[in-house]
Amino acid sequence: MVVTFKEENIKTLKHLFLKGYEDQDKNYAVYTSKEVYAHINYIINQYMNLPNLTVGNHAYEKNDGVSTPLSLCQEFYRHGSISPGNDTFDIDPFIEKECLSIYPLEPVKDAAIQDMNFTLDFKRLLSVKVYLIIKTINLQTVRHNELPDCYAFRTVILFDNTAHSGRIKISLDNHVQINVCKDWNISGSSDKDYHLTLILTFDSFIILACLVSLILCIRSVLNGLQLQSEYAMFFQKHYQKTVSMSDRLEFVNGWYILIIISDTLTITGSVMKIGIQTKELTNYDVCSILLGTSTMFVWIGVLRYLGFFQKYNILILTLRAAFPNVIRFLTCAVMIYLSYCFCGWIVLGPHHENFRTFNMVADCLFSLINGDEIYSTFTKLRGKKYLVWLFSRLYVYTFISLFTFMVLSLFIALITDTYETIKQQQQKGIPASELQAFIMECKDLPASGKYNDPETRTTAAPSSYLIETSCLTAPVPAEASCPDVCVCWHDG
Amino acid sequence: MVVTFKEENIKTLKHLFLKGYEDQDKNYAVYTSKEVYAHINYIINQYMNLPNLTVGNHAYEKNDGVSTPLSLCQEFYRHGSISPGNDTFDIDPFIEKECLSIYPLEPVKDAAIQDMNFTLDFKRLLSVKVYLIIKTINLQTVRHNELPDCYAFRTVILFDNTAHSGRIKISLDNHVQINVCKDWNISGSSDKDYHLTLILTFDSFIILACLVSLILCIRSVLNGLQLQSEYAMFFQKHYQKTVSMSDRLEFVNGWYILIIISDTLTITGSVMKIGIQTKELTNYDVCSILLGTSTMFVWIGVLRYLGFFQKYNILILTLRAAFPNVIRFLTCAVMIYLSYCFCGWIVLGPHHENFRTFNMVADCLFSLINGDEIYSTFTKLRGKKYLVWLFSRLYVYTFISLFTFMVLSLFIALITDTYETIKQQQQKGIPASELQAFIMECKDLPASGKYNDPETRTTAAPSSYLIETSCLTAPVPAEASCPDVCVCWHDG
Amino acid sequence: MVVTFKEENIKTLKHLFLKGYEDQDKNYAVYTSKEVYAHINYIINQYMNLPNLTVGNHAYEKNDGVSTPLSLCQEFYRHGSISPGNDTFDIDPFIEKECLSIYPLEPVKDAAIQDMNFTLDFKRLLSVKVYLIIKTINLQTVRHNELPDCYAFRTVILFDNTAHSGRIKISLDNHVQINVCKDWNISGSSDKDYHLTLILTFDSFIILACLVSLILCIRSVLNGLQLQSEYAMFFQKHYQKTVSMSDRLEFVNGWYILIIISDTLTITGSVMKIGIQTKELTNYDVCSILLGTSTMFVWIGVLRYLGFFQKYNILILTLRAAFPNVIRFLTCAVMIYLSYCFCGWIVLGPHHENFRTFNMVADCLFSLINGDEIYSTFTKLRGKKYLVWLFSRLYVYTFISLFTFMVLSLFIALITDTYETIKQQQQKGIPASELQAFIMECKDLPASGKYNDPETRTTAAPSSYLIETSCLTAPVPAEASCPDVCVCWHDG
Amino acid sequence: MVVTFKEENIKTLKHLFLKGYEDQDKNYAVYTSKEVYAHINYIINQYMNLPNLTVGNHAYEKNDGVSTPLSLCQEFYRHGSISPGNDTFDIDPFIEKECLSIYPLEPVKDAAIQDMNFTLDFKRLLSVKVYLIIKTINLQTVRHNELPDCYAFRTVILFDNTAHSGRIKISLDNHVQINVCKDWNISGSSDKDYHLTLILTFDSFIILACLVSLILCIRSVLNGLQLQSEYAMFFQKHYQKTVSMSDRLEFVNGWYILIIISDTLTITGSVMKIGIQTKELTNYDVCSILLGTSTMFVWIGVLRYLGFFQKYNILILTLRAAFPNVIRFLTCAVMIYLSYCFCGWIVLGPHHENFRTFNMVADCLFSLINGDEIYSTFTKLRGKKYLVWLFSRLYVYTFISLFTFMVLSLFIALITDTYETIKQQQQKGIPASELQAFIMECKDLPASGKYNDPETRTTAAPSSYLIETSCLTAPVPAEASCPDVCVCWHDG
Repeated sequence: MVVTFKEENIKTLKHLFLKGYEDQDKNYAVYTSKEVYAHINYIINQYMNLPNLTVGNHAYEKNDGVSTPLSLCQEFYRHGSISPGNDTFDIDPFIEKECLSIYPLEPVKDAAIQDMNFTLDFKRLLSVKVYLIIKTINLQTVRHNELPDCYAFRTVILFDNTAHSGRIKISLDNHVQINVCKDWNISGSSDKDYHLTLILTFDSFIILACLVSLILCIRSVLNGLQLQSEYAMFFQKHYQKTVSMSDRLEFVNGWYILIIISDTLTITGSVMKIGIQTKELTNYDVCSILLGTSTMFVWIGVLRYLGFFQKYNILILTLRAAFPNVIRFLTCAVMIYLSYCFCGWIVLGPHHENFRTFNMVADCLFSLINGDEIYSTFTKLRGKKYLVWLFSRLYVYTFISLFTFMVLSLFIALITDTYETIKQQQQKGIPASELQAFIMECKDLPASGKYNDPETRTTAAPSSYLIETSCLTAPVPAEASCPDVCVCWHDG
Repeated sequence: MVVTFKEENIKTLKHLFLKGYEDQDKNYAVYTSKEVYAHINYIINQYMNLPNLTVGNHAYEKNDGVSTPLSLCQEFYRHGSISPGNDTFDIDPFIEKECLSIYPLEPVKDAAIQDMNFTLDFKRLLSVKVYLIIKTINLQTVRHNELPDCYAFRTVILFDNTAHSGRIKISLDNHVQINVCKDWNISGSSDKDYHLTLILTFDSFIILACLVSLILCIRSVLNGLQLQSEYAMFFQKHYQKTVSMSDRLEFVNGWYILIIISDTLTITGSVMKIGIQTKELTNYDVCSILLGTSTMFVWIGVLRYLGFFQKYNILILTLRAAFPNVIRFLTCAVMIYLSYCFCGWIVLGPHHENFRTFNMVADCLFSLINGDEIYSTFTKLRGKKYLVWLFSRLYVYTFISLFTFMVLSLFIALITDTYETIKQQQQKGIPASELQAFIMECKDLPASGKYNDPETRTTAAPSSYLIETSCLTAPVPAEASCPDVCVCWHDG
Repeated sequence: MVVTFKEENIKTLKHLFLKGYEDQDKNYAVYTSKEVYAHINYIINQYMNLPNLTVGNHAYEKNDGVSTPLSLCQEFYRHGSISPGNDTFDIDPFIEKECLSIYPLEPVKDAAIQDMNFTLDFKRLLSVKVYLIIKTINLQTVRHNELPDCYAFRTVILFDNTAHSGRIKISLDNHVQINVCKDWNISGSSDKDYHLTLILTFDSFIILACLVSLILCIRSVLNGLQLQSEYAMFFQKHYQKTVSMSDRLEFVNGWYILIIISDTLTITGSVMKIGIQTKELTNYDVCSILLGTSTMFVWIGVLRYLGFFQKYNILILTLRAAFPNVIRFLTCAVMIYLSYCFCGWIVLGPHHENFRTFNMVADCLFSLINGDEIYSTFTKLRGKKYLVWLFSRLYVYTFISLFTFMVLSLFIALITDTYETIKQQQQKGIPASELQAFIMECKDLPASGKYNDPETRTTAAPSSYLIETSCLTAPVPAEASCPDVCVCWHDG
Repeated sequence: MVVTFKEENIKTLKHLFLKGYEDQDKNYAVYTSKEVYAHINYIINQYMNLPNLTVGNHAYEKNDGVSTPLSLCQEFYRHGSISPGNDTFDIDPFIEKECLSIYPLEPVKDAAIQDMNFTLDFKRLLSVKVYLIIKTINLQTVRHNELPDCYAFRTVILFDNTAHSGRIKISLDNHVQINVCKDWNISGSSDKDYHLTLILTFDSFIILACLVSLILCIRSVLNGLQLQSEYAMFFQKHYQKTVSMSDRLEFVNGWYILIIISDTLTITGSVMKIGIQTKELTNYDVCSILLGTSTMFVWIGVLRYLGFFQKYNILILTLRAAFPNVIRFLTCAVMIYLSYCFCGWIVLGPHHENFRTFNMVADCLFSLINGDEIYSTFTKLRGKKYLVWLFSRLYVYTFISLFTFMVLSLFIALITDTYETIKQQQQKGIPASELQAFIMECKDLPASGKYNDPETRTTAAPSSYLIETSCLTAPVPAEASCPDVCVCWHDG
């Protein structure tokens, strides 16, 4: 809601202060000197008459009862005589600045900067900047039993003539400041505190649940690590072999790691959420990223339970087995991808707006691989010089052919191959590692009563974001009879 | 036609009552107080002069000869003094409502609400609503020999200022009421009843045909179930084995189930269609969904007959065999998909309009997988804060890579694997289940005359929607000689 | 060029006669009675002043020196009193027509139909039609040494009020008549005839070349058929076996069939082209389709020569071998596709403009499969009733999942399977059919001189379209020594 | 920056001289004679008042102190009387030209060409051309310590009436001339030369580094070639066998070739860059293509180092092994692709704007294969004649089905097959060629000290573009003991 309020206000400011603005920022520019004056005067007049114009809560900022003025500044080269007709110029690139403050004392009709001794010499002019401060209150929150925020929009309207191309682009930028309102009074809102308290209690409960889950998972992981070191020592002593890395990793449950990360994120996020709700913090973005990522991990964690079924397992296993190969392959593919990115950026950058920055090139090429924006890329590169046109055609055709035809096909080959490997392994059931061979020797069945497995789970699923706090205790084997083989399990 | 008439009228109402409307709802809003008054006055004047303006049949609703008035209501906070300049406010969030009725007695020029003692205090104003009732008759149906309907458009024009962002969005909503006209007279339409009767007869015939098909299919399915239970008993008695679930399902013909569902939908849909044609029912949507779905099933049913050829069969068999694996795999994929949906909704929701609601996120991500909207998603997320930008890039790149590169590849691996399995099975022809082994023992050829198979089919394919009513009788074996093996077939 | 000239003229007519037209036909409509009159008067005035306005060669048609008038017709219900306010109406659906002719005698200012006794009763009005005839000459061809054509644009401007929805759509339709100009004189164009003769000679040469190619290919095919019948008889006589269909087809060279079709199309197309150039025929479309298709076949024919190399061959072989399976599979897929088309048409037709007609549904679904228009389809179905929304979501998600995930995967499985089969066959080289086994027995090497292979080729590749006339004579074996095996070759 | 400045100026000129221009070139045209005069007069008036209007540095070109005039030329048929009403015309296709020069002596109000004895006879008129020369200086570079350039925009505004369709398209074309300014003076820019010198030094260093890398790589390649010839001679002598082509190619390291190409491009590009920076050259495009391509190759070269790891290697190997097959297959596919291109161009060219030129057809079809522009292609072909519509549907459906379903599937089959072959080869490790078998015989281990491998690398990675200059020396074996086998290595 905060973001929407901000965006709507910015839209309003654009409509109020930019003459002839029609919801399109891209081509908003002026081309003649008369227009420049008209636009500036329009801004001043609109600002002067703001209280009568606006349908929102916009008001001037007041310092000691005096409204802050509109500030009009121009930047220009100190000295310059330019006559392109003769190909001659004489310029001093030092930039001077001249400002003018206009106080909104009373509504004026047709104020004009020309009358205020403020003339623009377009040949030397670099930019005109208009600074405004508009204050407003977001009253909507009153109905949701939250305290309204007070906003200050520090607006800069920029007439950019640095290029001296005859086109002055006009842009409106805002720096938004959100404060707690100083003095407020809301009649008849008795249940407000109750509502807030409820939410805070709920958040605290979630933090607690996650904390418990976090501690238990850490305990399990630590237990696993301990067991692993004992196993390694046992192996060292009895078989004089070092345990391989992949066997060591078997002792650490990846799902627990996932839950630990998810819990950490949830706790941090919830603490921040409490801070935001009590108006102490305002960085909504970090909070939402933390909570969003934790929710994602919780949902991915559900796959673990699906993995308990044999048939569902195969797919997760395939993805996991293919992962190293895919990463290796991606490394190679990314190299080629980067080579295309750099090349496209350098060569096509000036000719195609999708290739202006490196990020845009990367985005555009990624879209091309997936079959988007192809035709429009072609279209925008039409009508260029023959050499550029030829290069762009070669570039796009080879890039798409290479990636969609060869690289994607290799992906499929990789995955298909892994799938078949996994399937054969499942059907034959060969113990792949020494650890599994070691466990195989233990003949005690789980049902024999020699192990007790007090695995308990606590699940807390609050309404606003879903949290899962399973994995509380790791299986703790009680007794063991296979003398020298399973003894390590006993100690774990 | 009803839908088109409705939509065209709504378009007309927007053009008549919304000042400067140009077929674009998205940015239709006002920003200054003067504009608000001008828009409201425009609505009133247009309403007053409606009979002279409209080129359609629009008229005021009349109750006892008096035209219903236009109703103009404003909602505002009971009490409020807001001065954002000082960061102070004093508000009573209780909402009051004030209304004004304007009767369209005679065409007026330049009516203005300012003169009518109706002022708006924008700081407290929440919304202005204008209520109109416009009546019209859909005369087009006369030429198709149907009775015209009478429509009442209960229109609400909303000026929404709840956000107090300085931007008042204007929207026009309609509640359309379709009635049978009270009093009507159409000259020279003698063959109208004949035409309607023809359609109704045709519909009734279809219902009848479907009913017959439905009954016969149900009989077949019931026969199959009976045979299955006898087979199970026979097996229990002679071999002391229970029959597996998959063998049991062999007795129920899936195609018959499809036909039963399709017939049920057709019958319900046709009954509703008759209701609509005789002006008793108006829920077109439900009717069209029923008939549309039944048509779909009928066309899918055609695959059954293609399946009689060996080579066509392999493809249907592959799809059927791959189905459980695909579903299992989809379950896993949907988990990851949902995790991305939730995460995107929480984090990117405020920053990208395609991520506003959960449904939109799901739609957008689904489009991304299939290579649509990729570049525009990137573009819309440009120019955000660095943190959000970074997150969005990570989010989109990992999502698309994961789904188009890995998940889709796994799908291909799954299907390819199944295809090969099926092909090998077909080439080797091993009886897969006990049931097939049991049938194999029966040495009587179908041509030996020991079975009579009076399979008959009745097909009715009406013009407007295609209906197929095959599967009337199940094969009933007459005699059987393989003593203790085929005896169950005899009883079935 | 003809098409471009036509389209530009239609654009011009729209700009000249449609008031406020801005290159967008979609929303061009009027909503108030005043506007209707204004638009009609505008058309009349523009027509009256046409000679002064136009920058092209537009002129009135003249019959016996008198300019043809503009014809203004209205259609309306004979009798009707409609009062939607009371839900009552009394209508006679018989349609009357009233016309008015306006002669463009002299330029008039502000002609108005209201003054001409031509009033519109909008409640009864069905349509207003304005008939104009505008003549023009396409002078451009003069510079290409072709004779200019004379065009007559029979224009109808339609104000469509059949829906009585308050929205009168305005459309401009043209019936274009292209004639040879009656009386013409082009100064200083001496080399014109020479140029035309050159083109005609060239076309005739192509026709001749294609004819020779056609005859020789037909001879080869006939030879093949004769050889086949002799082979069949030989087999019948010596081995008492009938020859299988696939063996019979081996005797007919598919490439020759392709060349025959291509040649036939080229000849027909070239004959039509000559007709068009000598201004006897005007059906450009048919001619371009014939020549275009023949060009396509010629290019595909190039694959034949690539097939002479072993390694290139494997790919063509795979495609050919996979073809029957693909067709079979496509038949099944098309069934499901059609079922979705019908269902979408019936249910979503009134709610989404891409689903209005059956063709549009088919196009839209085909685009969806290939990853286009997905998000916009979702977007346009937003904001509908809940039931329709739910149905549309189910519909689109299941459709895309089924087709892109399962059907396309099966395609890949099919092709991969065929590719492997072909590759193994090539590596092992087992004679697949009886015919091949029969040929194997013949021990004479081609180099032994027992066959003479006077294969000659004539290739004609004219500039404007590429034509290939190979395959002139089939190999005719001269002598044969393997007594009872190769004897049939001798006879062929 | 140069390109941006150019484009912004062109935009400005369009806005200054084209009446009512709104950033859309596509539909910018006039339809009435009055409009034509108004547009021409507008251009003249704007040109006259240019110094007062522009906000940039635009000025008239001056020759000997006199501003160059605006030149207004019309082209028309020498003689022509056209009366389409009677289908008669009498024309002399010789084209005459009439010009008028207007000097910008003093600002004029409402200049009109009608007063200047310049009338247009639209029936004979072919085109009106307005020639302007506008000069400007790109001052932006001053702030980057570069010298400003002087630009001359030779502008032609064309009113194109060659079609005589009643629609005069207006276009503005520019020929931009970039010169070094004649006489200039920049105050207070002392560190400018230092900055430029720094960049030039840096560029020179890069050129040097690349040169060294280039020479060393060439040496290695030459060594390889020498070794190869000796090996061939040895083989010829001892085994009487000629060495196969693939074995010969083994001696030439492909990576070195890549580095040689990359270095050559970098050196040429850097030399050009120095030329541009010292204002001697202006062909930015060639320079950026050279540097961009070299950067691309450098990044691709990184793959070489990844290839040193066994597991990464398999993917590069697969791509390399699949390459010949892919090329072979692409040749076939391109044939079919071209056949579709030609056919679409001939048949659909006049009906669909995406099919106007051959290049556009190729682009459009390529987009279709990758799932872009499908629906819009369908949409634009709607509403054509039935025959064309039918053809277009057949065309698009068969094309997409053939390419996305069959050709892409075959690609996958190819790559999958190659991947498996490579994998098996790696697992079994059979020496594939005679060369490898030959090397196998050599029992000396690399660690035995019999070879010394002084491979050194020099890497220079400058900031603006990344350059890598590895591969300096090829391994030079010092001693060899396997007498008659490895002796060639010794000599190499």
